[in-house]
Amino acid sequence: MMIFQAEIDVMPKKEILDPQGKAVTGSMKNLGLAEIQNIRIGKHISLQIEAESADIAEQKVDQACKSLLANLIMESYTFKIAQL
Amino acid sequence: MMIFQAEIDVMPKKEILDPQGKAVTGSMKNLGLAEIQNIRIGKHISLQIEAESADIAEQKVDQACKSLLANLIMESYTFKIAQL
Repeated sequence: MMIFQAEIDVMPKKEILDPQGKAVTGSMKNLGLAEIQNIRIGKHISLQIEAESADIAEQKVDQACKSLLANLIMESYTFKIAQL
Repeated sequence: MMIFQAEIDVMPKKEILDPQGKAVTGSMKNLGLAEIQNIRIGKHISLQIEAESADIAEQKVDQACKSLLANLIMESYTFKIAQL
């Protein structure tokens, strides 16, 4: 068995409004950082997984994203895995 | 002026408990994914920034992280920028 580290990003879909990101974009102006635009805020999830191969680890992380970590109606996800 | 895309991860510090991550680690067992461990949950932030150079863009993103996006007492951050 090998252990893999997965780094997952779960973001609001492009066609979905992100009110938190919009509010933070507005705050940037007050900080003198008006050149920062289009802030979108999602989740970053790191985890470790034990698997027989990188392929199996990827399948299981994908299953975890689909069934628990991301709400596929409103969010999309991407991830990378690396052997530890 | 150039436009850069920044991808920022803000994570709870290692020495800080992450109760949300712990709860989700527990849920993985119920999903038949007990091989997934050590889940930690933070934020992923994407933004665009206009700057004269990559160095200046990096400085400004760093300033945004320090002053607004991350709580440095409990969180640490990493980011990458790329020219659009």
